[in-house]
Amino acid sequence: MPSGRIRNTAFASKVMSADDAVKYIQPDDTVAISGFASAGTPKVMIPALAEKIRGARATGSNFTINLLTGASVSTETERLLTEVDGIALRMPYQSESTARKRINDGRMDYVDIHLSHVAQQVWVGYYGQVDVAVVEVSGITESGELIPAASIGNNKTWLDVAKKVILEVNSWIPEAVEGMHDIYYGTALPPDRKPIPLTRVQDRIGQPTFRIDPAKVVAVVETNCRDSASPVTPPDAISEAIAGHVLEFFDYEVRNGRLPADTLLPLQAGIGNVANAVLGGLDRGPYKGLTCYSEVIQDSMLRLIKDGTVAHASSTALALSESGIEELTANVDFYRNHITLRPQEISNHPEVVRRLGVIAMNGMLEADIYGNVNSTHVMGTKIMNGIGGSGDFARNGYVSLFMSPSTAKGGAISSIVPMTPHVDHTEHDCQVIVTEQGLADLRGMSPRRRAREIIEKCAHPEFRPMLNDYFTRADAMPSAGQTPHILGEAFSFHQRFMDTGSMR
Amino acid sequence: MPSGRIRNTAFASKVMSADDAVKYIQPDDTVAISGFASAGTPKVMIPALAEKIRGARATGSNFTINLLTGASVSTETERLLTEVDGIALRMPYQSESTARKRINDGRMDYVDIHLSHVAQQVWVGYYGQVDVAVVEVSGITESGELIPAASIGNNKTWLDVAKKVILEVNSWIPEAVEGMHDIYYGTALPPDRKPIPLTRVQDRIGQPTFRIDPAKVVAVVETNCRDSASPVTPPDAISEAIAGHVLEFFDYEVRNGRLPADTLLPLQAGIGNVANAVLGGLDRGPYKGLTCYSEVIQDSMLRLIKDGTVAHASSTALALSESGIEELTANVDFYRNHITLRPQEISNHPEVVRRLGVIAMNGMLEADIYGNVNSTHVMGTKIMNGIGGSGDFARNGYVSLFMSPSTAKGGAISSIVPMTPHVDHTEHDCQVIVTEQGLADLRGMSPRRRAREIIEKCAHPEFRPMLNDYFTRADAMPSAGQTPHILGEAFSFHQRFMDTGSMR
Repeated sequence: MPSGRIRNTAFASKVMSADDAVKYIQPDDTVAISGFASAGTPKVMIPALAEKIRGARATGSNFTINLLTGASVSTETERLLTEVDGIALRMPYQSESTARKRINDGRMDYVDIHLSHVAQQVWVGYYGQVDVAVVEVSGITESGELIPAASIGNNKTWLDVAKKVILEVNSWIPEAVEGMHDIYYGTALPPDRKPIPLTRVQDRIGQPTFRIDPAKVVAVVETNCRDSASPVTPPDAISEAIAGHVLEFFDYEVRNGRLPADTLLPLQAGIGNVANAVLGGLDRGPYKGLTCYSEVIQDSMLRLIKDGTVAHASSTALALSESGIEELTANVDFYRNHITLRPQEISNHPEVVRRLGVIAMNGMLEADIYGNVNSTHVMGTKIMNGIGGSGDFARNGYVSLFMSPSTAKGGAISSIVPMTPHVDHTEHDCQVIVTEQGLADLRGMSPRRRAREIIEKCAHPEFRPMLNDYFTRADAMPSAGQTPHILGEAFSFHQRFMDTGSMR
Repeated sequence: MPSGRIRNTAFASKVMSADDAVKYIQPDDTVAISGFASAGTPKVMIPALAEKIRGARATGSNFTINLLTGASVSTETERLLTEVDGIALRMPYQSESTARKRINDGRMDYVDIHLSHVAQQVWVGYYGQVDVAVVEVSGITESGELIPAASIGNNKTWLDVAKKVILEVNSWIPEAVEGMHDIYYGTALPPDRKPIPLTRVQDRIGQPTFRIDPAKVVAVVETNCRDSASPVTPPDAISEAIAGHVLEFFDYEVRNGRLPADTLLPLQAGIGNVANAVLGGLDRGPYKGLTCYSEVIQDSMLRLIKDGTVAHASSTALALSESGIEELTANVDFYRNHITLRPQEISNHPEVVRRLGVIAMNGMLEADIYGNVNSTHVMGTKIMNGIGGSGDFARNGYVSLFMSPSTAKGGAISSIVPMTPHVDHTEHDCQVIVTEQGLADLRGMSPRRRAREIIEKCAHPEFRPMLNDYFTRADAMPSAGQTPHILGEAFSFHQRFMDTGSMR
């Protein structure tokens, strides 16, 4: 029963089942799929592919693909393909436990890259030819263009570069979503690049649909499936405390003339409870008509838009809970005027992030006493998720904040350590560190001053004496230098945790 | 005897000696001076200031300033002010031995930041009010605008933000230099930023002179002083070998359609012998009409321009040897059509670097087996120079190369180590590593593959077995994860060097 979403006959003639369409995916293919956070992952092609791989393995033949995505995709997708050992190489981000374990066991190649670099690197050919793109859309127009779904991610790039394209047309997505997207077709490879003409968060610089060469479309599969929901827990006291410090910082910046009153500058916040708490607290402040320029839109954003605190939010994906999905679906006509979804090439573009003067707020695993940040590697070796877009915003933003509870694992781990055993963001890209203990404003500070500020303001009181002891002794060494360290003790906190289960 | 360089009477009336002008600089002032690499440092005001500080100290009073520059300035300047203990805080870059020692002794605050961030951070007020700017120019026009000297650096910003301005008008600089500069007045703080309309290296987007509010100019000092010369030694066999690998890489990229034949993409190369060797080798290749978009122009560039290998070079400073200065001075009319000097805000701007698709080539102290790069801190603590603009180009370039001899100190130090004790550029920003041993192409590789490639291609044969041993054992640990390390041994090479004088 056709859904009426396929308004172009050339595409209608290619409708088939997922089981039929999956024949276009072969072993060793590089497969690029839609999906960014919980939204927009193909719903039926991946289960069909996992089944095909399982079948191939049952007959003793090897079957893996290289999997390219926007960022993380739905947990079901990551899990299904991992369980059949179907992925040889994965990029650029993941956040699912079975895939993470496979990666950390050294059994899946994972390339962790800045999200703003993905499109360029694939265009140039770092990952070879993209054999198949599998992209979820919400409809196909009369003229044969594609109406995007609940995330954009790298879909424009996948559709442009793939040899073959399989479309999933999902009629569960409200038709009224049409017009919420802004697909920019002005990017190019050098030497042909031009300025990206985006100067305000709400600017529309592209078109609402994807272009596609119909000759490349080998299959169209119709679905009617809910998007995955992002889990959201209500902010706890620690997240609220962090949010409180951040909001105080905004006030301080406004009072000192470094941020415009009322509207601040465009906000970026990573995914998670702390980010949700910070955003959630904005409507308790004096702000009106704020803007957000970020990767994802979480539940708290819908409320801020509804009450006028936020005038416009730009992102590349929706990452909503069940109730957030309900709210958006029920009021698409309203939200469409306040939300713009863009390709991640644009949502994270260094040029745009710098121009807009984004306030970058990202989570971290740990920071060292000098402000170097580890966002990805637990104890320096095991990857958690990936760097994602944090570097795009932290490096090019107007001011860059990193946030974390001061401890983890019930107080056994300090998120402020002498030296991080993995660095994703160097001290050059970290101007403010925030924990529930306080906010360290590192702007204009040399490393020694940064150390004193971070230990005093951000470290948990239980770890403060140990950190002060390390810094004082390092500073007294003849080799202290610009950034005092005792190399033999730099990882003593981590070693103690690995040996005893606690950094204390 | 006036030089005739001051064509505006309002400025002519402010001419005085350096000894008189120095009264405008007071203890605790933040003083922003011209100068980038060896070019354009004020010639007489700094000696006069050092003398004033010496005098104050002789009477028992404390006298320090905060010193802001473009990057490094002339060695005389760094040394004079350091010897009188005259600098409380220094930013954003230095490269002189007495200053370096003072910093590493913890007696001078030094803030090491991306050069593209300096103007923005000063505008916003991270360093408080700039009390005095001391800027060398080559002349003052009839209408009261300033003709720049041999570097631009942050001079536009200093002239805009300082409360008081002291000008040094240096008649030694050929008048024919007028027109070589392009000062862009379109920058702003957010939310008022617009696209920077530069799409080709040779584009002129500004005006040849600085604007200045004459009311702020408190003194004009006339000089006739040579610029400092940058030392250049002829390329040794190691630099030539590195250059050879880089040039082979260019050929390989052209053959694979990733770089345009003949013209490649705009080249950026750091300062130093390796960079000079790479550039110097370009005219042995098939290239014609190349472009360079970089921070500095070294001697090798003049030759490449002369023989047509390079059509246009953009930078923020000249950093020439004595003979390079002679060559440029004798042929300014020719070079003016092939060289554009810009504010470092533009020469290093992330927006422009990304748009042009710059090929970023920077030196390093060491890289770890995963491609994290230490550019600044010897043994993790003692700063060498600073990050400078390397991050601006490495992060936003089309492809990012880091280059170093595979060993230092007569073979006692390996520049490939298990883990770098300081990270300036993360693995995300390092696609290619080059030593005289070979070139590791890390594009699209997961950490384990990167490790094997770097050890095999770049490490010195004497250190290769030790590195392989570390990696193999780390990879076999239950905690190996995505990026295998043994934290207790990660700095064993460095510890051995500190204990025994050798990493072997």
